[in-house]
Amino acid sequence: MGGALPSTLPLALTLGDPAGIGPQLAIEAWRRLRLARGETFFWIGDPRLIEKAVPVVRIEHPEETAKAFEHGLPILPVFCETTVIPGRPDPRNAAATIESIRLAVRHALAGRAGGVVTNPIAKHILATAGFPYPGHTEFLAALCDQPGAEIMMLVSPQLRVVPVTVHVSLRNALDTLKTDSIVKVAETASRALKSDFGMIEPRLAIAGLNPHAGEQGLMGDEEQAIIKPAIERLRERGILCHGPLPPDTMFSAHARPTYDAAICMYHDQALIPLKTLDMAEGVNVTLGLPIIRTSPDHGTAFDIAAPATDACVADVSSLLAAIRLAAQMSTHRKGKNR
Amino acid sequence: MGGALPSTLPLALTLGDPAGIGPQLAIEAWRRLRLARGETFFWIGDPRLIEKAVPVVRIEHPEETAKAFEHGLPILPVFCETTVIPGRPDPRNAAATIESIRLAVRHALAGRAGGVVTNPIAKHILATAGFPYPGHTEFLAALCDQPGAEIMMLVSPQLRVVPVTVHVSLRNALDTLKTDSIVKVAETASRALKSDFGMIEPRLAIAGLNPHAGEQGLMGDEEQAIIKPAIERLRERGILCHGPLPPDTMFSAHARPTYDAAICMYHDQALIPLKTLDMAEGVNVTLGLPIIRTSPDHGTAFDIAAPATDACVADVSSLLAAIRLAAQMSTHRKGKNR
Repeated sequence: MGGALPSTLPLALTLGDPAGIGPQLAIEAWRRLRLARGETFFWIGDPRLIEKAVPVVRIEHPEETAKAFEHGLPILPVFCETTVIPGRPDPRNAAATIESIRLAVRHALAGRAGGVVTNPIAKHILATAGFPYPGHTEFLAALCDQPGAEIMMLVSPQLRVVPVTVHVSLRNALDTLKTDSIVKVAETASRALKSDFGMIEPRLAIAGLNPHAGEQGLMGDEEQAIIKPAIERLRERGILCHGPLPPDTMFSAHARPTYDAAICMYHDQALIPLKTLDMAEGVNVTLGLPIIRTSPDHGTAFDIAAPATDACVADVSSLLAAIRLAAQMSTHRKGKNR
Repeated sequence: MGGALPSTLPLALTLGDPAGIGPQLAIEAWRRLRLARGETFFWIGDPRLIEKAVPVVRIEHPEETAKAFEHGLPILPVFCETTVIPGRPDPRNAAATIESIRLAVRHALAGRAGGVVTNPIAKHILATAGFPYPGHTEFLAALCDQPGAEIMMLVSPQLRVVPVTVHVSLRNALDTLKTDSIVKVAETASRALKSDFGMIEPRLAIAGLNPHAGEQGLMGDEEQAIIKPAIERLRERGILCHGPLPPDTMFSAHARPTYDAAICMYHDQALIPLKTLDMAEGVNVTLGLPIIRTSPDHGTAFDIAAPATDACVADVSSLLAAIRLAAQMSTHRKGKNR
């Protein structure tokens, strides 16, 4: 959304699961961005995984990235404990995956990286290795010392969506939907759209929960009991928002230009329209943390992972979009803090 | 979906609420289809509402439609009880709205009309006048002597969706979702795709209910307990289907070509992708009845209703698509019965 802005700080790209498509995608992203003279990043990963496929420059500090980028893929090394076999994840390499994330966050917090872009991890592999967090995002929040502050936004060329409830069953989403969480999520989104997306007065569309947004209580009362009070509170706090909107029409081509982000009541209400419109270029953004963090909207794809020297069959669009968005966000945030 | 096929039987278009956009849309549809030498229909409505704006031919039998169509809009008259003021619905005219539907169904059942295309009604106006049905579709099913047999399918140029639960709150949808209803809806859809859409072996995509289709029970067990048993039963009956699919990815451009209709667990799971992709050309189709019935996917639009002599600002796309689809369905069904 909007043209690429020059970012002065390089981005930190994590290793992800080394047996997934992450290493191949890192190479592919470097090739394209180097050619385009676009955003720069350093990869926090194991150079041995890719140095036979592509020129690499081992660096010690993020600030070496800019100079190195045209000569090779800048790598801040972390080493895997055991041989990586693409497609066959190994818990023994979980430590490298985790250390890469930890380092990325440290450099971002210290202002040496413009933001963190994370390659996909496999939760069950990390869990086997004793990783105590349900996912990437919770770990990032803990590293930032702000557990629970994280909010997920998904960004595609045509839509920004923010689900209030996320990875829970639909019934659980209904049972846990609260006015307070809608307000918190919408406020965080509004703040981020100002600080990181350069908007002066972001407009939020608040979704209803039921068909036709309940049709005045005929089909469910959550709009009256839970969502409307949230909208009133948000307005009192000066946040531009409208709703509760009928969920089926609010994502139409006609309606999309009327808001900057849609606040959605459950996972699929947010994800269905986004992925229906654009599957390949979706970016997952974590809001509410002191660091900027984006991530491609796909998994490790072990089934198509291949050695770095093989042709990359994975689609790099989402990672490229994640890098570009992180760079734009970093530029906006720097502008704000100037 | 597919080119227009010639239909030998005219379609019956109902009055709908006479104070809505129905009369103007009937005129607009006639103008376009006459020019295109396309499908023919007769309007069961009040000639006085439109005869100052357009040439009309009052007919007594549907079979006069073909000859009349190039000279004027063929009308099988039903008369409103009181003066119609566009934008101001009046319960005194409900009788005409209802009589129009009744006649349309009678002609379709008798094989004199290829199908029924209904203009929008206002449920609360009909209810005030004592109409005992929750909506159009239930009334049609009763007129066909098959209450409860009706199934709603929505058709757009890019997608066909069939919700298993419809106009109930999301919580109610969760509480009432049953293996039996999924099987019934999917079977009806499969049968209709064969008889009315000319498909030999229709492929159904069965949606999951929870994020990521529950991820092996981690986020809800309805996929295991309710949806998978339905899929097994459908397969035993020889119906091609796959699922339960993660609801967020199954409507992507990549996935859509892999099925002919998506069976969805709740209203918005079906309607969000359809309206996100295409708001203007959606058609509501009633399956499971002995007659063919389609309807534009919009309401009475009292706010933009105007006298027939005024320029029509309403979008006729959805009604035109409804007429064309009904004609195609009628041709396919006739072909089957030959």
